[in-house]
Amino acid sequence: MAIVLDAMGGDHAPQAIVAGAVQATRSSQFPIVLVGRQDMLEAELRKHDTTGLPLSIQHAPDVIAMHDHATAVRQRPESSIRVACDLVKQGEGQALVSAGHSGATMAAALMGFGRIAGISRPALIALIPARTSHPTLLIDMGANADCKPLQLQQFGLMGSIYAEQVYGVENPKVGLLSIGEEPSKGNELSLAAYTLLEEAPLNFVGNIEGRHILSEAVDVVTCDGFTGNVALKTLEGAAEYISALLKAELRASPRTVLGALLARPAFNRVRARMDYEEYGGAPLVGLNSAVIIAHGRSSAKAMTNALHLAHRTVAMDVTGKINQRVAELLSGSETSPA
Amino acid sequence: MAIVLDAMGGDHAPQAIVAGAVQATRSSQFPIVLVGRQDMLEAELRKHDTTGLPLSIQHAPDVIAMHDHATAVRQRPESSIRVACDLVKQGEGQALVSAGHSGATMAAALMGFGRIAGISRPALIALIPARTSHPTLLIDMGANADCKPLQLQQFGLMGSIYAEQVYGVENPKVGLLSIGEEPSKGNELSLAAYTLLEEAPLNFVGNIEGRHILSEAVDVVTCDGFTGNVALKTLEGAAEYISALLKAELRASPRTVLGALLARPAFNRVRARMDYEEYGGAPLVGLNSAVIIAHGRSSAKAMTNALHLAHRTVAMDVTGKINQRVAELLSGSETSPA
Repeated sequence: MAIVLDAMGGDHAPQAIVAGAVQATRSSQFPIVLVGRQDMLEAELRKHDTTGLPLSIQHAPDVIAMHDHATAVRQRPESSIRVACDLVKQGEGQALVSAGHSGATMAAALMGFGRIAGISRPALIALIPARTSHPTLLIDMGANADCKPLQLQQFGLMGSIYAEQVYGVENPKVGLLSIGEEPSKGNELSLAAYTLLEEAPLNFVGNIEGRHILSEAVDVVTCDGFTGNVALKTLEGAAEYISALLKAELRASPRTVLGALLARPAFNRVRARMDYEEYGGAPLVGLNSAVIIAHGRSSAKAMTNALHLAHRTVAMDVTGKINQRVAELLSGSETSPA
Repeated sequence: MAIVLDAMGGDHAPQAIVAGAVQATRSSQFPIVLVGRQDMLEAELRKHDTTGLPLSIQHAPDVIAMHDHATAVRQRPESSIRVACDLVKQGEGQALVSAGHSGATMAAALMGFGRIAGISRPALIALIPARTSHPTLLIDMGANADCKPLQLQQFGLMGSIYAEQVYGVENPKVGLLSIGEEPSKGNELSLAAYTLLEEAPLNFVGNIEGRHILSEAVDVVTCDGFTGNVALKTLEGAAEYISALLKAELRASPRTVLGALLARPAFNRVRARMDYEEYGGAPLVGLNSAVIIAHGRSSAKAMTNALHLAHRTVAMDVTGKINQRVAELLSGSETSPA
């Protein structure tokens, strides 16, 4: 198996992307195909000792820029993201990783790989550092702004399979993001999704509120992509705000400056716990190949982790498992008396 | 003018509620009518020196409990919240404050006061401590789980008037909570609301993301009550999580314990900044009387602040201003060429 990497995507491409790929093949010997401008990628690779590392280059002359519209991928078959998708489609790799234009990556992946039979929409999983053993998976974090109840059921199922396969969570607890814990609380969408989640073959624990996302109450949070994106960005904003506020207050007197100096190891550990780079990226699930959408700001470290995540997603056959469980769900509902 | 207070509502009622009312009349001489069981309220008042304070009691034998259904108010005219609403309706007071069952309070207030002409739905404002000069107003924070675009426009308008009148914000910046700053980003509801907000007589600055709620980018955030409630609870959860994480890490070694001790004044100032008690409650706007929904957990201090907020809401005639601006908006749209 191999991972195909869009080496031209991301704010620090191709330097950080190539450096991350080199590190990933050093720590785990899975092949990586770097897709992008041959000359640029060769130049980047020469900066590292790549002797014996399973790295190869596939030339792609064009790049979709961050300011391009996502639909640009349709007209630009020579862009690195399109060439990368084609390689996976042709079986040259089993997973796609990109830190480039996320809308373009999703569009290219949907076009190239297609949806798993029975899956209504692919969805993006946010990996939230709610505990040390494994992240909490929030699905959908923004691929689908408007959703139907069935999609929220499927997001719960895909999230559950991902938590189980990739993070080894037994019987993952799935919660529905809503505005009260009682089953009667919610909006039209969540109320209808509640019923479908109760019927689904997963460990549905009911509604959860925004304040539970970071608690250990659930392993998987299912919601529409609008609500999920707002919640995720709100979390990020709160962490930044509190951190900035605390920094300013700690600077206010010599006593607190000294306190902050002594307390620094604790602050560093908290920062490390909240570090998005640890997870590397957001899995896009529901398509016929594994896809990891890495953060546009990805550093080499974030890229290495995104590549490891892609490797694990393929190794645990998440796509195959989703395929199988959805087929079971659909055949079950066909024969059910309802 | 007088404030009518449901003295039986809240986790710490009537003790904390009465104590908060006593304090409010001490610091500002507006009359307060305490509604509830005469014997209990008299006993509570005897605990304080109330000489010369403008406090009175209106007997109400019944109480809506937290576990009751909100619709119970319809059948229980002798409950403290219903009696309190009746007093306001009869002109005995100009604002209602309650820390009791929030659903029941909203139902009783809607039933008793009615909507301002032209206002589709009343909405709850969350006061978020995003800066020291004035809070950021998030509207709706949960009164309306499913909304129409017009309601989001009206929420923006009501929030803008509230920020202007009660907090003295000049030309308040109103942002629409969405999943990207570009006008093209959002769900069906937010995209339609965007157009209506552009047309409204307010300072609409476009979409904001969850991470901007705590920034100083806007003074007012408009959104449907489902999204608003999820965002607000997520903020609360993030603050609690980071605080707990930091506490645990600070306890990990003698060095960081000492650091924490020295840094304590800074931690206390950050905590004070994030303290919901400072604002006391959530204004419910869009009805023909001022209403403040205080937190169920309200302490005496929170209650005092809720009463001051109610006083200011009445003094600045927020209800009248909303009435007037909505009438202008509606007459404007009737004569517009569209």
